[in-house]
Amino acid sequence: MKLKLGLPKGSLQEATFALFARAGFSIKVSSRSYQPVIDDDTIDPILLRPQEIPIYLADGVIDAGLTGADWIADSGAQVHEICELRYSKLTNNPIRVVLAVHQDSPVQGPKDLEGKRIATEYVRLTERYLSEHKTQAHVEFSWGACEVKVPSLVDAIVVNTETGNSLRAHNLRIVDTLLTSTTRFVASRQAMEDDWKREKVESLEILLTGAMNAAKLVGLKMNLPMAQKEEILGILPSLKNPTLSPLADADWIAAEVILSEREVRDLIPRLKRAGATGLVEYPLNKVIY
Amino acid sequence: MKLKLGLPKGSLQEATFALFARAGFSIKVSSRSYQPVIDDDTIDPILLRPQEIPIYLADGVIDAGLTGADWIADSGAQVHEICELRYSKLTNNPIRVVLAVHQDSPVQGPKDLEGKRIATEYVRLTERYLSEHKTQAHVEFSWGACEVKVPSLVDAIVVNTETGNSLRAHNLRIVDTLLTSTTRFVASRQAMEDDWKREKVESLEILLTGAMNAAKLVGLKMNLPMAQKEEILGILPSLKNPTLSPLADADWIAAEVILSEREVRDLIPRLKRAGATGLVEYPLNKVIY
Amino acid sequence: MKLKLGLPKGSLQEATFALFARAGFSIKVSSRSYQPVIDDDTIDPILLRPQEIPIYLADGVIDAGLTGADWIADSGAQVHEICELRYSKLTNNPIRVVLAVHQDSPVQGPKDLEGKRIATEYVRLTERYLSEHKTQAHVEFSWGACEVKVPSLVDAIVVNTETGNSLRAHNLRIVDTLLTSTTRFVASRQAMEDDWKREKVESLEILLTGAMNAAKLVGLKMNLPMAQKEEILGILPSLKNPTLSPLADADWIAAEVILSEREVRDLIPRLKRAGATGLVEYPLNKVIY
Amino acid sequence: MKLKLGLPKGSLQEATFALFARAGFSIKVSSRSYQPVIDDDTIDPILLRPQEIPIYLADGVIDAGLTGADWIADSGAQVHEICELRYSKLTNNPIRVVLAVHQDSPVQGPKDLEGKRIATEYVRLTERYLSEHKTQAHVEFSWGACEVKVPSLVDAIVVNTETGNSLRAHNLRIVDTLLTSTTRFVASRQAMEDDWKREKVESLEILLTGAMNAAKLVGLKMNLPMAQKEEILGILPSLKNPTLSPLADADWIAAEVILSEREVRDLIPRLKRAGATGLVEYPLNKVIY
Amino acid sequence: MKLKLGLPKGSLQEATFALFARAGFSIKVSSRSYQPVIDDDTIDPILLRPQEIPIYLADGVIDAGLTGADWIADSGAQVHEICELRYSKLTNNPIRVVLAVHQDSPVQGPKDLEGKRIATEYVRLTERYLSEHKTQAHVEFSWGACEVKVPSLVDAIVVNTETGNSLRAHNLRIVDTLLTSTTRFVASRQAMEDDWKREKVESLEILLTGAMNAAKLVGLKMNLPMAQKEEILGILPSLKNPTLSPLADADWIAAEVILSEREVRDLIPRLKRAGATGLVEYPLNKVIY
Amino acid sequence: MKLKLGLPKGSLQEATFALFARAGFSIKVSSRSYQPVIDDDTIDPILLRPQEIPIYLADGVIDAGLTGADWIADSGAQVHEICELRYSKLTNNPIRVVLAVHQDSPVQGPKDLEGKRIATEYVRLTERYLSEHKTQAHVEFSWGACEVKVPSLVDAIVVNTETGNSLRAHNLRIVDTLLTSTTRFVASRQAMEDDWKREKVESLEILLTGAMNAAKLVGLKMNLPMAQKEEILGILPSLKNPTLSPLADADWIAAEVILSEREVRDLIPRLKRAGATGLVEYPLNKVIY
Repeated sequence: MKLKLGLPKGSLQEATFALFARAGFSIKVSSRSYQPVIDDDTIDPILLRPQEIPIYLADGVIDAGLTGADWIADSGAQVHEICELRYSKLTNNPIRVVLAVHQDSPVQGPKDLEGKRIATEYVRLTERYLSEHKTQAHVEFSWGACEVKVPSLVDAIVVNTETGNSLRAHNLRIVDTLLTSTTRFVASRQAMEDDWKREKVESLEILLTGAMNAAKLVGLKMNLPMAQKEEILGILPSLKNPTLSPLADADWIAAEVILSEREVRDLIPRLKRAGATGLVEYPLNKVIY
Repeated sequence: MKLKLGLPKGSLQEATFALFARAGFSIKVSSRSYQPVIDDDTIDPILLRPQEIPIYLADGVIDAGLTGADWIADSGAQVHEICELRYSKLTNNPIRVVLAVHQDSPVQGPKDLEGKRIATEYVRLTERYLSEHKTQAHVEFSWGACEVKVPSLVDAIVVNTETGNSLRAHNLRIVDTLLTSTTRFVASRQAMEDDWKREKVESLEILLTGAMNAAKLVGLKMNLPMAQKEEILGILPSLKNPTLSPLADADWIAAEVILSEREVRDLIPRLKRAGATGLVEYPLNKVIY
Repeated sequence: MKLKLGLPKGSLQEATFALFARAGFSIKVSSRSYQPVIDDDTIDPILLRPQEIPIYLADGVIDAGLTGADWIADSGAQVHEICELRYSKLTNNPIRVVLAVHQDSPVQGPKDLEGKRIATEYVRLTERYLSEHKTQAHVEFSWGACEVKVPSLVDAIVVNTETGNSLRAHNLRIVDTLLTSTTRFVASRQAMEDDWKREKVESLEILLTGAMNAAKLVGLKMNLPMAQKEEILGILPSLKNPTLSPLADADWIAAEVILSEREVRDLIPRLKRAGATGLVEYPLNKVIY
Repeated sequence: MKLKLGLPKGSLQEATFALFARAGFSIKVSSRSYQPVIDDDTIDPILLRPQEIPIYLADGVIDAGLTGADWIADSGAQVHEICELRYSKLTNNPIRVVLAVHQDSPVQGPKDLEGKRIATEYVRLTERYLSEHKTQAHVEFSWGACEVKVPSLVDAIVVNTETGNSLRAHNLRIVDTLLTSTTRFVASRQAMEDDWKREKVESLEILLTGAMNAAKLVGLKMNLPMAQKEEILGILPSLKNPTLSPLADADWIAAEVILSEREVRDLIPRLKRAGATGLVEYPLNKVIY
Repeated sequence: MKLKLGLPKGSLQEATFALFARAGFSIKVSSRSYQPVIDDDTIDPILLRPQEIPIYLADGVIDAGLTGADWIADSGAQVHEICELRYSKLTNNPIRVVLAVHQDSPVQGPKDLEGKRIATEYVRLTERYLSEHKTQAHVEFSWGACEVKVPSLVDAIVVNTETGNSLRAHNLRIVDTLLTSTTRFVASRQAMEDDWKREKVESLEILLTGAMNAAKLVGLKMNLPMAQKEEILGILPSLKNPTLSPLADADWIAAEVILSEREVRDLIPRLKRAGATGLVEYPLNKVIY
Repeated sequence: MKLKLGLPKGSLQEATFALFARAGFSIKVSSRSYQPVIDDDTIDPILLRPQEIPIYLADGVIDAGLTGADWIADSGAQVHEICELRYSKLTNNPIRVVLAVHQDSPVQGPKDLEGKRIATEYVRLTERYLSEHKTQAHVEFSWGACEVKVPSLVDAIVVNTETGNSLRAHNLRIVDTLLTSTTRFVASRQAMEDDWKREKVESLEILLTGAMNAAKLVGLKMNLPMAQKEEILGILPSLKNPTLSPLADADWIAAEVILSEREVRDLIPRLKRAGATGLVEYPLNKVIY
């Protein structure tokens, strides 16, 4: 029994392999075979373009996969979403699928596209968008690099963007946002009806989200004088539940807590000023609440 | 008046820019704008995927372009072919568009594809091929990298190949060759009806073919003793017409001839043995017969 | 008093330096001097070809070293083996020393080598192998790259291989395996008779094996409800002895255990389902049982 | 309210960004804008040459910064030193500002410079040094790379050096050391009189020194049999205060201690021989005593 | 007797070495010594910052050098200019020294700088410029990278720019151009009064300008039918004097001419249409009129 | 019929391929097969260590090859030398095989080696050298990198050196030079007795030496006024025989001559001063006298 797993080729590939590595799975792509190899005999991985993953899932050709919400929406495919995994190539911010035109174009909104030529990798999404705005336009499929086609070949494009840098570099202006998208872990309906595959998918979910959490979290240990224990613990965010353990010296107690990297840099100076000693911050691999 | 010229992005891009450089045109792509810049005010260049060039030519959106015969055939577009330019990314050999299956597949010919699943970037070409062989199969568009899909996702693929290395590395076997293809310089029908554009296209043809020729040719000068003149000239290929010029010393005559690199390495030892002296081989930029 | 330590140059060098770094020793090779520098005043390191290390150990010129079991065997040298260290350049799998011939060669076993020409870096090992099989052949020393010599210069080769990729790329076929080999930490007999050197060698053994262990292990902490304590602990591999410590809240107990990366990814989902909370996995530098 | 923070451009830049990363702050420099971006809204970072930081601090144009003690001394500027941070580009050793001459120069001490030509980036420091030695010489400012100017253009140079490699490579000899320098975290006087800025500077000090400490320290856990507890703890350096915690099994006690990487490699073999078991060494992010 | 020659370090270095190579001089910088080595025993080369070259020339410390007209002007030094060499790091266009402010700054001209703070590497040039415009401002020396200082540290900068890209990337606006500058070959007054040095400098001028010319020129040979000789030669630019030589066949004449790459691509199609045959274009190393 | 040609692997490989390319033969090594491919069906190339080439030639296993005179001498093999080809990895200077010891060693000449330990790749050459000097020493084979073994493992080494840099970097001192060596084109005795092979080898010699010559030579054309013809031609080196051809204008004559790059840079200024005009220097591919 094997889980056929579609992995996104291209801009997300490196980040995906790194996430699996932190989750405990080594994936390698030999330059001789191009077929990824994973150190888990019950997983059969295959690298596919993110666009293709929803389609092969809907057909049941693969069991599960990672792809963007944008491509799921464009495909219109029926897939089972397991969880969101907020990572992307640069910033971990969501990407946006936008309608863009040249800086100097008169187009200000979807209505102005009537009769225009639009290039996009998101043909179905764009057609649904135009239809919602009761606008008729010529939508043509473009193999990436839509930006260079404006304005000499087309009037507008629908593309994804993470930072907007590429649009600015081509003197393009964003007119509207069709979609905000993050990476999703998805499964086929058929796989979710199979007990073994569903449990395998859920175990992967636990490990992947555990590894996602840990990337932003650290462990913090410290010793507290019994006298100021309550005061110092009061500094910690109320939802964080520190593990308290007795020390050989009964005047002191050990506290250990998991915090985000952002919190810890604000808390360490405050905890130290309040009397905590021996503060030690250490890295984590996975955190499962 | 400008000639809108489509240049092929991707694997042919570097070789194309190098050919134009030898023809006397500097093309640069700034990393900030992605728009190529050419040092000729009468040309407006645009980088496009080779697949897109025949389509934009047929629509008259661009005037001329360089692309593969394979994409012209797949598009079915009506374009005006100016000349063949035999260069490609690796070997200067033609590429082939082939039907391939897994080493262990029972498929031996097009008839065996009945009811099978085929992934390809050449959807129309594949459908025409199947129809010629009166075979029905499911043809799906694939964004490149078809090789990894056999046999887990599809039964066969139609892909281009220059050396066959990638097919072998994936344990694939070639079943049939649909097409042999080289790069072509093509123009739109509209452009050929405009006097200025047609003359510009023809001037480009002279310079591009002149630069293509020169890449394989060298110049060879030598001094011949009058006595052995006829004998030595008899060694040269009969179609090559050497330029003979008198020397100050009337017992000798200077000969100069354009030869291919392959010929010259066989001829130099023979010419020397026959009495030619002062043999000097020099590089060429362009040769126009 | 210093320990003269031979380090293997070449394919194992980077992995060896990385292992020492995890064991707490920084080794650097300045591009100006080629002499490695270690941050331990009692060690005098020298980079040598792995083949040379057994020979210099047998002569007592160096005190200890890291090299492959294959070279120890080929040298026939008398050395004291301290421990095995299973790491290699690519896979951490043992390498094999094999007899290989061209795909199309009629040779099927050692007997078929009678009168043939064999190129190898393992001259003595090959001669012993032939003598065990009562076969006579011409064995010639080759400075690496034996693969290209078959079949134009020699009939067979004896080479080491980790993945078999290089053999396959040269159309070679493995006929027999002479030896399976891993890296060894070895000392000279003279060094083991000196109290200070023997203790130094043993301390290095503790740190190197501690670092080897840690590369595959992680720490896992979790909180267990007292009620399900036995049931949850029952999930852990029976040989793993978790450290249990009381918590301030007496209904819960903290457990901490060292597990391999492979185990932990199977256990985390099961522990979570069984009621463990606050599971935190963290990286380790060294583990000494 | 923002803290204007000067970061040293050039050879210290990468090490500085790495130190901030370990302290919990991500600093990035986009290749498009050259302006560093930090993930803390209350810090306004700016990259400056280390030479410029003391001057802008003295003018109150920036609030705090990291720069070398050498440039602070050369500037003669009045700045408030917060703490020393011992890191540098190569070795973490202090750099030295030295007076150097050609191998064959007759100059043996500062007195021999009378009437000579000296090139340096440290014009004021050099002039103060000459004046202390009651010597007159021509001091000229040089934009780096002073080494190549000796002896053809100048007689001596005053430069900084970490390893002396560049001086040796130019056949230069060190005559005297003017200054030994490490990196300093410094603030302007104006910033230290502002409550918010002073507290921000002090919080940064805690996090930066915590991260500096951790780079050399590791955590070590082990289980001790109650019977040998005192003996084993006696092996630890007397200033290190281990955290002792009870175990479920009362015959054993858990000990945890923070040690330097150098100490730990000597202690692990001794602790193991004395009866400690389950020794586990783990990495740390920050240590605040 | 040697000519002490200052070569510009930094952005012009690679282009300068390439120009000397085409002129017939190999200059190498060994990574071990940083001293350039030239294959001419009568030249003693030294790498210096372009800013320093005019100063050392004025002092007579070096005999000749290559540097920018901008640095000559800034230095105010008395040097003898031999010739202009129009090459630069990117475009072969002149660089400009400009006054720039932030996009949103109210500054529109030099008069608006009254009382402002200006950072620059061109301190003297900027002070002369302000004085010509009867404006008082604080001019501070900046070690490069002035762009990042606007507007947080200074109000305006004076910097050089070739394409304006860096200014745009920092949101800066050009207010005025102080100077347009190209590279110059310059000599000291003392060197020009020495017969040997002056002749050496002039020989270098011939070879450097010969190599500069050749970079833009090509040779073109062709055979002309006697009948159309005048007509075809009329196509050539009137200032170009073709070399005509008789051929063995008296009905034809050989013509050879040196043309710029730009001209040749326009002329080849016209010459061919007019009856010229056997057109061969070849590269040149040096052209001296 | 094929010529089996041994090409030297390693430091000479790139320079050898470049020389063949200039001679008109393209040699490529695919990363998949490691077998070189040449575009001449009558040559069968094989990459071998330079040390192995003389041995395989003496056995008649290969027909011809390129290797160093040092390895021919060390092998003591009987081979037929065709010609010297003076190129090497760095400087085109001959390499030297030297005896070297540590800076501080008492060894001053071969006699001082009595009873010492010597590491070398040239075992036979070293033994012959010792025997000529009637000295007994222990000579051990070393797989390259002999330099690091002095003085800790051996007393002296015999190694090749081109610039002496590596010896200096290891604090070694040259005691004696055993041999000066350049690259040689050699053939087996058997091949020279076969008519086809001997002619093939001689053709290769013509092309390889033609390409070697051209690397240092250039062509120079100029027009001379008839009046100063003799005077100007007198400037040219007496052995150079210029080709003179009449011009259409009888007052002038065209001269063309092949010169070395070194000569041409001295002659161009002198020719110009003497009245030559239209001097044009162009590159050459091959020159066969």
